[in-house]
Amino acid sequence: MGNTTGRLFRITTFGESHGPAVGVTIDGCPPRLSIDGAEIQRDLDRRKPGQSRITTQRKELDLVEILSGVDQGLSTGTPITLLVRNQDARGKDYSEMREKYRPSHADFSYQQKYGIRSVEGGGRASARETIARVAAGSVAEVLLKKHGIQVLAWVESVQELSIDMRDDEVTAEAIEANDVRCPDPEMAVQMFARIDAMRKAGDSIGGIIRCVARGVPVGLGSPVFDKLEAELAKAMMSIPASKGFEIGSGFAGTLMSGSAHNDAFYGDKDGRIRTRTNFSGGIQGGISNGEDLRMRVAFKPTATILMEQESVDKAGNATTIKGRGRHDPCVLPRAVPIVEAMAKLVLADHLLLHRGQMGASK
Amino acid sequence: MGNTTGRLFRITTFGESHGPAVGVTIDGCPPRLSIDGAEIQRDLDRRKPGQSRITTQRKELDLVEILSGVDQGLSTGTPITLLVRNQDARGKDYSEMREKYRPSHADFSYQQKYGIRSVEGGGRASARETIARVAAGSVAEVLLKKHGIQVLAWVESVQELSIDMRDDEVTAEAIEANDVRCPDPEMAVQMFARIDAMRKAGDSIGGIIRCVARGVPVGLGSPVFDKLEAELAKAMMSIPASKGFEIGSGFAGTLMSGSAHNDAFYGDKDGRIRTRTNFSGGIQGGISNGEDLRMRVAFKPTATILMEQESVDKAGNATTIKGRGRHDPCVLPRAVPIVEAMAKLVLADHLLLHRGQMGASK
Amino acid sequence: MGNTTGRLFRITTFGESHGPAVGVTIDGCPPRLSIDGAEIQRDLDRRKPGQSRITTQRKELDLVEILSGVDQGLSTGTPITLLVRNQDARGKDYSEMREKYRPSHADFSYQQKYGIRSVEGGGRASARETIARVAAGSVAEVLLKKHGIQVLAWVESVQELSIDMRDDEVTAEAIEANDVRCPDPEMAVQMFARIDAMRKAGDSIGGIIRCVARGVPVGLGSPVFDKLEAELAKAMMSIPASKGFEIGSGFAGTLMSGSAHNDAFYGDKDGRIRTRTNFSGGIQGGISNGEDLRMRVAFKPTATILMEQESVDKAGNATTIKGRGRHDPCVLPRAVPIVEAMAKLVLADHLLLHRGQMGASK
Amino acid sequence: MGNTTGRLFRITTFGESHGPAVGVTIDGCPPRLSIDGAEIQRDLDRRKPGQSRITTQRKELDLVEILSGVDQGLSTGTPITLLVRNQDARGKDYSEMREKYRPSHADFSYQQKYGIRSVEGGGRASARETIARVAAGSVAEVLLKKHGIQVLAWVESVQELSIDMRDDEVTAEAIEANDVRCPDPEMAVQMFARIDAMRKAGDSIGGIIRCVARGVPVGLGSPVFDKLEAELAKAMMSIPASKGFEIGSGFAGTLMSGSAHNDAFYGDKDGRIRTRTNFSGGIQGGISNGEDLRMRVAFKPTATILMEQESVDKAGNATTIKGRGRHDPCVLPRAVPIVEAMAKLVLADHLLLHRGQMGASK
Repeated sequence: MGNTTGRLFRITTFGESHGPAVGVTIDGCPPRLSIDGAEIQRDLDRRKPGQSRITTQRKELDLVEILSGVDQGLSTGTPITLLVRNQDARGKDYSEMREKYRPSHADFSYQQKYGIRSVEGGGRASARETIARVAAGSVAEVLLKKHGIQVLAWVESVQELSIDMRDDEVTAEAIEANDVRCPDPEMAVQMFARIDAMRKAGDSIGGIIRCVARGVPVGLGSPVFDKLEAELAKAMMSIPASKGFEIGSGFAGTLMSGSAHNDAFYGDKDGRIRTRTNFSGGIQGGISNGEDLRMRVAFKPTATILMEQESVDKAGNATTIKGRGRHDPCVLPRAVPIVEAMAKLVLADHLLLHRGQMGASK
Repeated sequence: MGNTTGRLFRITTFGESHGPAVGVTIDGCPPRLSIDGAEIQRDLDRRKPGQSRITTQRKELDLVEILSGVDQGLSTGTPITLLVRNQDARGKDYSEMREKYRPSHADFSYQQKYGIRSVEGGGRASARETIARVAAGSVAEVLLKKHGIQVLAWVESVQELSIDMRDDEVTAEAIEANDVRCPDPEMAVQMFARIDAMRKAGDSIGGIIRCVARGVPVGLGSPVFDKLEAELAKAMMSIPASKGFEIGSGFAGTLMSGSAHNDAFYGDKDGRIRTRTNFSGGIQGGISNGEDLRMRVAFKPTATILMEQESVDKAGNATTIKGRGRHDPCVLPRAVPIVEAMAKLVLADHLLLHRGQMGASK
Repeated sequence: MGNTTGRLFRITTFGESHGPAVGVTIDGCPPRLSIDGAEIQRDLDRRKPGQSRITTQRKELDLVEILSGVDQGLSTGTPITLLVRNQDARGKDYSEMREKYRPSHADFSYQQKYGIRSVEGGGRASARETIARVAAGSVAEVLLKKHGIQVLAWVESVQELSIDMRDDEVTAEAIEANDVRCPDPEMAVQMFARIDAMRKAGDSIGGIIRCVARGVPVGLGSPVFDKLEAELAKAMMSIPASKGFEIGSGFAGTLMSGSAHNDAFYGDKDGRIRTRTNFSGGIQGGISNGEDLRMRVAFKPTATILMEQESVDKAGNATTIKGRGRHDPCVLPRAVPIVEAMAKLVLADHLLLHRGQMGASK
Repeated sequence: MGNTTGRLFRITTFGESHGPAVGVTIDGCPPRLSIDGAEIQRDLDRRKPGQSRITTQRKELDLVEILSGVDQGLSTGTPITLLVRNQDARGKDYSEMREKYRPSHADFSYQQKYGIRSVEGGGRASARETIARVAAGSVAEVLLKKHGIQVLAWVESVQELSIDMRDDEVTAEAIEANDVRCPDPEMAVQMFARIDAMRKAGDSIGGIIRCVARGVPVGLGSPVFDKLEAELAKAMMSIPASKGFEIGSGFAGTLMSGSAHNDAFYGDKDGRIRTRTNFSGGIQGGISNGEDLRMRVAFKPTATILMEQESVDKAGNATTIKGRGRHDPCVLPRAVPIVEAMAKLVLADHLLLHRGQMGASK
């Protein structure tokens, strides 16, 4: 369970790190959308390992194959399955991992839950699982673009190194201009140096990814349990290593007074109702209000570190374990496309849900 | 849509603020649980208005009626419906609210989504909807208690007024000992004064609620999309006025290094595998690891304030609007039982999901 | 579980025969539909007991109350809850039913599944549960009418007494013109006499209800598991006492050759593509093709009979049990509105699902 | 949508007839079940084309590959994906099918619903889709066997040629002993001759498959909408070419009186409560009662026939179309494993649902 998300634009993912493949089936995609394997590949390339020396050096091409649901470049309305074969399943020695639990990994909890686990590379708990999310998000994006919606995420902070840019000044080009995916080039240099220093030390760090969605129509989201921010929170908190989520003012908003926090309405020159501020983060009562969606996601430092750590073996005996080989000293640069994918999937689903109940998306 | 949550322990809520009633149907509740209307009432009383001068003075008894699913005090395994009639639907003049949008309320987004809304008291977007959550959470608690699980929430901060207590020192008694529901009695006095000052000023404030779940067995939660923290995040972010969610180290964890953040394993004297620290917040790989669950939820200042604010009417014309009458200057004291209820509902559902797939909850 | 059906037009029902009430919550209903309590009541009146001497003489007014989701006569897009209080919970002696299992009732299987059951009147397994279906179907009908869809069901046979009318000759008026709800007035007289004779004998009989849906647009239904006929089959087979379902040619179609069975296409004078015959029953590949939907549902003889029958008590000891008092000697006349309701609910859901994925219902 | 079924034991299928592959992802499978590719292959071989001269001569090996969720032969509790590559996508000329609608196929309704379709071989509407069902059913069977449940289906009739055997006399060996999959060897010869004659005539025929489930524990199924017979009905009516479903006495039961139809209870010599007859088909009140489940499924004559038929082209112009090449003159022999698979999937899901709510499967 737990490998399906969405109700109308619904995806199911599968695959272990060192199994034959990882993949995703997208059910409910509207027909006659242009689905281009090359574009999906471009998104996967933003997530793949080995992009720079601050990402894991694991060698994977992550080439996507479209198995179904696309005919002559168009979606047919039937399930779209995207498959990525695993290649770098090299004969590393996993005998230690089989016996000992890596701290702050899923080894222990998976073993206890299932009484079995795919040990190699973390199996299903590996971040390779997120390939499926990015591939599906790429399909969702085709739908969103038709509705004028753009989703953008970037690294806002690495530890205490943090940028202070206005959301509307950030461009996709600025984000992709450096290996950190931070739109402030000077801060990106500092962040890179910090991450690289951590890498050399065999340690790891975390940070915050900021995500905005522009052009979201008024009316997406549902009252009560499926509020748009609730759906986004779940989507983001399902990403490996995420520890916190904020919409709009978030935790900082708890320091404000209501008179400062309330977003005053006004009519703009085009007759559109807007808000002066956007502490709401584009969502009121669980429903988008036409302003940009604004979110932040906290990522912990990578659990894999190349240091000796206290642990236990399966029998509960005290031992130590030390990460080896290739790892991401900081997940953030590669997590940026994953955060974008999750936002896209939620929005695509709610676009369809909205027009299902209402008959048209406004 | 959006009024149902959970898969095996599944609730559906209904009702508007000034309609005849609000209520909930719980489907999938295990049979032969002792369901006591008086206990549900006790939980509802913790949420009801008029508890002290820092909560809204709206008069509602919020008396619960059990309509189905209980026979001679025991759940029968069929749907349990709990109903609370609305009483204080007094003849207030809502003509202004009918025409103007209250800032940072759901008026505008509901109107745009549906082309219609129940104006009085906010209709479905009213916090009265949370009566249904608390009532359902009370039933979930019966199941959790059988499994030795205790959920506890309290006010950790009001604006910058914040306590610093160890989670395991907090008791239900200390929380309920004051009107703020802050377990530190001295800080509670300060918080009360702050909230009361805001009330007199016609303004409002927010803060943070902390929630722990003790005695959670290892193994609850599912990989990938339905990770336990993702489910909790969705549940909490669906509460009116919530703006942020953290599990374990949360945003603060982004400042740490991996070597400091990783939770080392050890075997305790009873042979149970534990972690030295709990930055993971009791969940690893989306699955509970047997440590206490630790969450924080940020609440914005109440949107209703007794001040003149810039807004527009339905036609988009500039106007002003001012809240009147009774309101909560700070939602936190009454939100405590709601946060608890949402945590209970998620855990009850995952208890059943776990034993569904695995055959037994460990 | 099992008390919710539908995905976008989704209903959840609750209530036991002799509990305080039965009811339904409809989530996902499009907004601004005219919801009239009097029309819902009219549908409930077609289902209620005591309509004639061939239905049970139990006295229930089955008055519906709208608890939520309707504002000034219009649906608001939020959950609509409809409640019917039980009235005739008279102090009958249920001590025998508490100890013995009635043959072909749900007593034994409920008791074994749940280890508890509401004994009086069959509890949740009582046909009173279908009140909720009829009430919800009445709301669904408002949506269907806007799309030009009409659903009609009638009694086609009682035991071997069977009519032979063309579907398109049957009208609502003809069906409602007699107590049996058989559109052939002469056969209705015979059926009435047969049922009445069975009533006098303390025995019971079954028969077949035929159901058509006219004006169904092309395109409703989904491939593979949620084929429209599969959804209809589930809906019909969930009605108490139903034992069989057919779409189009049904079991009789197994005797034909493909060359006789295939429905040839032709273009009618309005340029619409039609089929010469309709052995498909209006559905091809799981998707409606624009022809009338044609179904048949088999109902077994009522399980309650006023005769001594072999049975066992809860301890497994041999005993006998005899039904007493009021019962329906034949469920069909009152099942007609239930069959209609289930068809309406399936079609309403698929209308919304279709426009959710496709963007418009054609 | 519509490509997922089940709630806890949940499958999602994908793939078109002439696309790269068809496959299935099974989510929620309990861990540590022995999953053997060779056993899945054995089940697929019972479904594959070219088994005898009365099945289509299309050449497909239908070799299954396990892509995920299995480690060293054991299920890991994570999604199991089974993939079958399409091989016989030979360069047949589909230009006629692209323009004209084949009668009683899904061509027209798919085209109208989606505005696009995969033409070759029927695309998603091809019976090749059922490969995924059989593969998934094979995994479900591993779970069922652990609980002592056996599912068996066979050809009961081909047109009017019908066997009359007691259910409990039928064995898997007798069914597999001939190409028709009819356990009565003499009738099998007649059926074979009839099918073969139809094949030579370029025509097609249908018939009835009977299915029993033995060893089903008391208590599976849910009240109201998810009654076990309703779930089975949906599952069976989702199989291509199925037109009718019966549980227990089915349509024939409508001719009986209640006194004859009721299944009297008795205690057998082992103290187990049984019924004298089984007109209920093993289900009462939607919940299994411990007797064998008994179902019948009607299959229409194959829509593909090698005869000239009246039809229209996409523009609505009158034309004719004639099937060519390879087809199944009668789907029944190959549908037997599909019927079994669907029954297994429903039972596996309800086993898990039952123990989820109840804590143990009895």
